[in-house]
Amino acid sequence: MQWDAWGDPAKKRELSDAVTSLLTGFLGVSAPTRSRLAIEDVQVVPSAMAQSHVEALAGMVGAEYVSTKDSDRILRAGGKSTPDLLRRRSAEPQDAPDVVVTPGTDAEVEQVLRYCSANRIAVVPFGGGTSVVGGLDPIRDGFDAVLSLDLRRFDQLVGLDEESGIATFGGGTTGPRAEELLREHGFSVGHFPQSFLFATLGGFAATRSSGQASAGYGRFEDMVQGLTVVTPSGVIETGRAPASAAGPDLGELFVGSEGTFGVITHVRVRVHRLPETTVREGWSFPDFATGAAALRELVQEGSAPTVLRLSDEAESGVNLATTDKIGENAFTGGCLGITTYEGTASHTAERMAEARAILTAHGGTSLGEEPGNSWEHGRFDAPYLRDALLDVGALCETLETATTWGNLANLRSSVTEALTKALVEQGTQPLVMCHISHTYKTGASLYFTVVSAQTEDPIAQWHKAKTAAGDAIISAGGTITHHHAVGADHRPWMKDEIGELGANILRAVKNAVDPAGILNPGKLIP
Amino acid sequence: MQWDAWGDPAKKRELSDAVTSLLTGFLGVSAPTRSRLAIEDVQVVPSAMAQSHVEALAGMVGAEYVSTKDSDRILRAGGKSTPDLLRRRSAEPQDAPDVVVTPGTDAEVEQVLRYCSANRIAVVPFGGGTSVVGGLDPIRDGFDAVLSLDLRRFDQLVGLDEESGIATFGGGTTGPRAEELLREHGFSVGHFPQSFLFATLGGFAATRSSGQASAGYGRFEDMVQGLTVVTPSGVIETGRAPASAAGPDLGELFVGSEGTFGVITHVRVRVHRLPETTVREGWSFPDFATGAAALRELVQEGSAPTVLRLSDEAESGVNLATTDKIGENAFTGGCLGITTYEGTASHTAERMAEARAILTAHGGTSLGEEPGNSWEHGRFDAPYLRDALLDVGALCETLETATTWGNLANLRSSVTEALTKALVEQGTQPLVMCHISHTYKTGASLYFTVVSAQTEDPIAQWHKAKTAAGDAIISAGGTITHHHAVGADHRPWMKDEIGELGANILRAVKNAVDPAGILNPGKLIP
Repeated sequence: MQWDAWGDPAKKRELSDAVTSLLTGFLGVSAPTRSRLAIEDVQVVPSAMAQSHVEALAGMVGAEYVSTKDSDRILRAGGKSTPDLLRRRSAEPQDAPDVVVTPGTDAEVEQVLRYCSANRIAVVPFGGGTSVVGGLDPIRDGFDAVLSLDLRRFDQLVGLDEESGIATFGGGTTGPRAEELLREHGFSVGHFPQSFLFATLGGFAATRSSGQASAGYGRFEDMVQGLTVVTPSGVIETGRAPASAAGPDLGELFVGSEGTFGVITHVRVRVHRLPETTVREGWSFPDFATGAAALRELVQEGSAPTVLRLSDEAESGVNLATTDKIGENAFTGGCLGITTYEGTASHTAERMAEARAILTAHGGTSLGEEPGNSWEHGRFDAPYLRDALLDVGALCETLETATTWGNLANLRSSVTEALTKALVEQGTQPLVMCHISHTYKTGASLYFTVVSAQTEDPIAQWHKAKTAAGDAIISAGGTITHHHAVGADHRPWMKDEIGELGANILRAVKNAVDPAGILNPGKLIP
Repeated sequence: MQWDAWGDPAKKRELSDAVTSLLTGFLGVSAPTRSRLAIEDVQVVPSAMAQSHVEALAGMVGAEYVSTKDSDRILRAGGKSTPDLLRRRSAEPQDAPDVVVTPGTDAEVEQVLRYCSANRIAVVPFGGGTSVVGGLDPIRDGFDAVLSLDLRRFDQLVGLDEESGIATFGGGTTGPRAEELLREHGFSVGHFPQSFLFATLGGFAATRSSGQASAGYGRFEDMVQGLTVVTPSGVIETGRAPASAAGPDLGELFVGSEGTFGVITHVRVRVHRLPETTVREGWSFPDFATGAAALRELVQEGSAPTVLRLSDEAESGVNLATTDKIGENAFTGGCLGITTYEGTASHTAERMAEARAILTAHGGTSLGEEPGNSWEHGRFDAPYLRDALLDVGALCETLETATTWGNLANLRSSVTEALTKALVEQGTQPLVMCHISHTYKTGASLYFTVVSAQTEDPIAQWHKAKTAAGDAIISAGGTITHHHAVGADHRPWMKDEIGELGANILRAVKNAVDPAGILNPGKLIP
């Protein structure tokens, strides 16, 4: 992962003429305010970690797994939101954790947490570094220093129960590594969020991640069978059985805890046999409302596909769903839907036949295989596209929410209006696009992509737009985040989301597991 | 509901000759140690509630909703486990809550909880009174008195969002009442546990109930979209969206909280359109292992039926799954499976075709519609049968657990052996039967029914057997309860289930919402 952009530099995108003309002609994009820096030109705030602590930590995990080098620190200085990437372009000294520690065992993690508890050192657990909500920001919050606890050595397939379909992985195992390790045995996790190529299973659990195949395989918390969580107060194992009535589900407290309650060192995850068949089908709907009603009918009355998506008119019009064709051959079919079916041949064929009947009856027209294949081909490429847009002076960011089917249209228009108004007020007409990518029997997610020209201070520009969107989400009854998590960026809305008593409950749990409050301060808990 | 037996006295069962000969011939059942008492002969421990408290409570909710009458108190003295029913047969003074209060609004509940917090009065929330784990026991635990907080006035359909498929009910609404209120609108909850006829939606949520149609509609916690919970520290609303990444799921703390964290006054529950079609099919498998493997294959690779059950050889042999035929015409087909499919005609037909192919390929033989219809007909009758067995001197009780598919055979044999050994040691050879009634991709539940002759002290006799079973469940890696909840009876195993740190977390949450500790003391939290 690059320190100041997404992913692998070899995969850098060039913008097509179509996109460039869209940006310059329609959005008024000109030169960027900030350009990328060479890493040797970056100034990093000096490490505040006392040498005695560095030595003590080296004694616990081995000297080779403790680093105060600027190059290691800056790589763990934050996540990959647009503001994060813009901050990396600053010529001012950049904040970063004071030390990076890479333990190798649960016992080492526990030792580090106890040491930090006793020595006023904040700890930020670090997986793939793909947070887009400020979940990795090195917030000191009154502590003397910040330690980045890198989980990368927890990258093994520890066990596989093929009969039960349960695999146990180290929490630092990345998405591709997990799939590779399982493939040898004929299994797959089936969790493919946008961050898949770099993010880790522990991170998926810590943030309640939801992947592109959620219609078929569920959200990551649905896949989690159990966690090993190391806290400053000891280790907890969650998930004794596939289902239980033995009181509140404590696993659901640690799923989504974003490193504030403990470090997820191992994840027991539901896996499935590699699908015999994968079939894709694109759909056209006359408008978003018709398409959304068709998706609703399918998930309420039929068997869900593995992937089920619907782009709105704006997103369909610029082909955002198929990243290699953006801006070309405007989609004139209203709204584009994508369905994918995986499984045994018969399971796939039966669901597809049922879905076709329902989608057709509700105003859909089949577009055949091609749109689904095209979407599949580019489905992890959007962050590369964003880097290219930032480079030419466009602002590009995404945000997401969810609500009931009955409230979906209201929420979509409220957020679109808030984003548009906030950016127009700053002199930049945006293109606001939206899609449904996660469906439930009772509702769906909404994922917004916003592109406009950058102002002179694009971080402040986006902050205003994001604040307006967050306020609109809460007013319109949505959740402040459907799958990006809370981090530092969504924390201002958490009291609206869970109420004062809910916030008190989180604080009480925090105090039980992390009495010194060292774990990821400034995140999640309002 | 009768005070000392299940349900409606008009539905009392007479034992067939076949059952009687099974009991006397095979199990050595003779006369009962304890007979049922006429209600006028019951002695109830006098109410300890000071008159000043009674008057204060009457001022909050109205005098007609506060009762210290013995007849009201004894009806709320406990649940409906076998030990509960045997205790009701005691000539000794019987313990009961000191007062029964029936508030009508959230504000009244809150006022009562605050008053009780200030006056050392324990509060036991009461729904349908069907607990089989001591969840309603009037445990004083150092408090001056115990108040039974009856939710029966919270029995309305408060709202129905037909588009989203979400209904809001008062927490005291019973299963049949909820179905009746929804039927007018063409909807159903689809939650049918054994306790369905009397239990309430708030109770289903408080205990993580799982119904007979769980394969199709999920456990009750899967259906819950949100709760209104009144605590001594204020009201919390859970479930802002169908899915969210806004931190830990606080709803999952209150689902399964068994009245120890708050009073569930309203439940927002997922509902579905009344099925167009219901089709049932019975199956025969040569043995339990083959049947379990077939069920596993179906839920892992296919679309689940609405109902999916498998009785073991012992249960199949006495026709326990079809209560009107118990003991007659011994089932000679090995193990009986039941499948039911509900939904639109096409959704039903497709799932059924797929299931048939999978079950047949894995050793199943279709028995046609009849066994499913027969099971359906008697599916809420087992508790009546238990009453009849207790009356003739048989001990009859059930217990349940769950584990992964890979551990299912081990858990089943461990629990069967422990129950058998513990009862044989007391001189009573038991019949131990088992079925799978809830399936997941990664595992399944096991539900045991035990019948033997009563000893002179059948409460102590069962306590020994239950203790042995609980210890065996924990040793063999099962959960202490899959859907009966914890109450007082499973509390001794909660530290094994969730660990010391897990117990500390529950205590921390309890302290945040109920600092005086008045809510259902002696239950759930170890």
